[in-house]
Amino acid sequence: MPELRKDPVTNSWVIISTERGKRPSDFETEPRPPRPGFCPFCPGNEEKTPPEIVVYRNDGAAPNTPGWRVRVVANKFPALVIEGALERQTEGIYDKMSGVGAHEVIIETPDHDQTLPAMPEQKIEEVLRAYRDRILDLKRDSRFQYILVFKNHGEAAGASLEHTHSQLIATPIVPKRVQEEVDGIKQYYAEKRRCVYCDMVQQELAYGGRVVSANDHFVAMAPFASRFPFETWIVPRTHEASFEDIGKQEYVSLARILKETLHRIERLLSDPPYNFVLHSAPFRQEKPVQYHWHIEITPRLTRLAGFEWGTGIYINPTPPEEAAQYLRDTALIADR
Amino acid sequence: MPELRKDPVTNSWVIISTERGKRPSDFETEPRPPRPGFCPFCPGNEEKTPPEIVVYRNDGAAPNTPGWRVRVVANKFPALVIEGALERQTEGIYDKMSGVGAHEVIIETPDHDQTLPAMPEQKIEEVLRAYRDRILDLKRDSRFQYILVFKNHGEAAGASLEHTHSQLIATPIVPKRVQEEVDGIKQYYAEKRRCVYCDMVQQELAYGGRVVSANDHFVAMAPFASRFPFETWIVPRTHEASFEDIGKQEYVSLARILKETLHRIERLLSDPPYNFVLHSAPFRQEKPVQYHWHIEITPRLTRLAGFEWGTGIYINPTPPEEAAQYLRDTALIADR
Repeated sequence: MPELRKDPVTNSWVIISTERGKRPSDFETEPRPPRPGFCPFCPGNEEKTPPEIVVYRNDGAAPNTPGWRVRVVANKFPALVIEGALERQTEGIYDKMSGVGAHEVIIETPDHDQTLPAMPEQKIEEVLRAYRDRILDLKRDSRFQYILVFKNHGEAAGASLEHTHSQLIATPIVPKRVQEEVDGIKQYYAEKRRCVYCDMVQQELAYGGRVVSANDHFVAMAPFASRFPFETWIVPRTHEASFEDIGKQEYVSLARILKETLHRIERLLSDPPYNFVLHSAPFRQEKPVQYHWHIEITPRLTRLAGFEWGTGIYINPTPPEEAAQYLRDTALIADR
Repeated sequence: MPELRKDPVTNSWVIISTERGKRPSDFETEPRPPRPGFCPFCPGNEEKTPPEIVVYRNDGAAPNTPGWRVRVVANKFPALVIEGALERQTEGIYDKMSGVGAHEVIIETPDHDQTLPAMPEQKIEEVLRAYRDRILDLKRDSRFQYILVFKNHGEAAGASLEHTHSQLIATPIVPKRVQEEVDGIKQYYAEKRRCVYCDMVQQELAYGGRVVSANDHFVAMAPFASRFPFETWIVPRTHEASFEDIGKQEYVSLARILKETLHRIERLLSDPPYNFVLHSAPFRQEKPVQYHWHIEITPRLTRLAGFEWGTGIYINPTPPEEAAQYLRDTALIADR
């Protein structure tokens, strides 16, 4: 079973993942060879993945057979495992706990060659709905404190399979990065009685120089303190703590701006590797929950080195004002 | 001039590096082609780097000519620049400051083909002495709050030149990662009246399972909450806040254990990309300074993906107990 271990100095947790146990010879430092033709996420290969947790399909066919539109399965090599009690232990000055959690894969389409931004808006909306369905279900498990939905696109961004998919990990702790946001939001609110993300959206829309696009419900923008070249956030224009609580019309708007933003990034930067991460409120917080959910899209164009590791300060060679301008000026292909 | 910008939510700083300004077409997503034969760090090419700041040489020859053993120069493409006043500004809800700092390169040897662990101990000691000389000099500049010394080895770890070198960046702020350590050390001390690193060293030496090696002054160990496979820390056995204050005999011991540890990593993992980072006390702290300096060596064998970015939780597929065992069992080549 994997273990969660806490660094006694910084109080950050790490996952020691025994399910993925790797010996020295398992690490390839050379680029991987091209993949063989077999894809476990393609229709007809349903038995090569763990069984479906959720599936959207037109026909009434049997589970784990072709004919689906979106399919959610457990990750075959999970970082955290669903079975088992949450046990906490000490080891001298150290703290650890059992690596209990959920690790699922959202297979976004049966089409092996389609990327997320190439999908019709209605299909993207369905993927977002699958995220919500899984979050609502997993929230009920009292062992979990947080659920992270994310997407790795391209090998350099950590994708190990080409067929477009997202992932979800439920953790028994509130992750450090999320807690930092929660603390920052609370501190800002305590001083100003306003939400920092609401203020940010207002200032960015007024200034315009870092806005990539906007629609009724969302703004896509290069953040002022962008850590990475062409980093782009999609932020709701009105205050909302949790992704899973938004209304039907917002999912439509979100699908549209997500498609358009990823499409711009894909076109401008020649289909770069990227990650996107859904930042939503931890769900065992006191009410009212102080958070403002959003999506952070980060193309992987730079390498992190000793300076970033040692300081936590990122060096970004592309000012966000320039990045936003380039993204705004990118012509979209009409029939997509 | 580069700019330091603060994220208004997490209060983390980023460097928007205009000196390295990059447009979309400047990002290579394909592996770079093999390098041409020319190396600006090789003897005879001294005029291709900015002039020497410090040099160790045997002969009395002119500066910036061959015959040196270790050479320190300004980075030609600095992340922060040495000229200029430290100016703070606001932009609505945001904070920024001028990107003032130092960014230097320590060319560790004139020999293009030598790696740091292949160098004789006395040569490594000289490299450590160059770190100390530069830290002692830059500390006197009142604009700076912190100096980070680090090494990127291999392209995947961020090295842009093959010829072995380290780097140093002086920053006008205490970096987030360093502040987290300082806060963690203070909190532990407030509770227990002991240094957390001292406790860690004691527990690791008593247990032994995560120790790679030890000598009179230092222990090389896989940390309990290792973020990366084969992550190894070199920690002084007795409490010392600052690297630059250690004695002559400790530099000898440090050169020995650093050489041996990097040698083990190089042999076990077939010369993997790695970073090492010197963690030392911020120098404008109240006395007595609560810190315990150390070196963190992190081989770059895994890719970070959306989960790590979204949570700050690292997934490590190699338990540190196994990593330490493999490193202990690695036979060293005697004549090195």
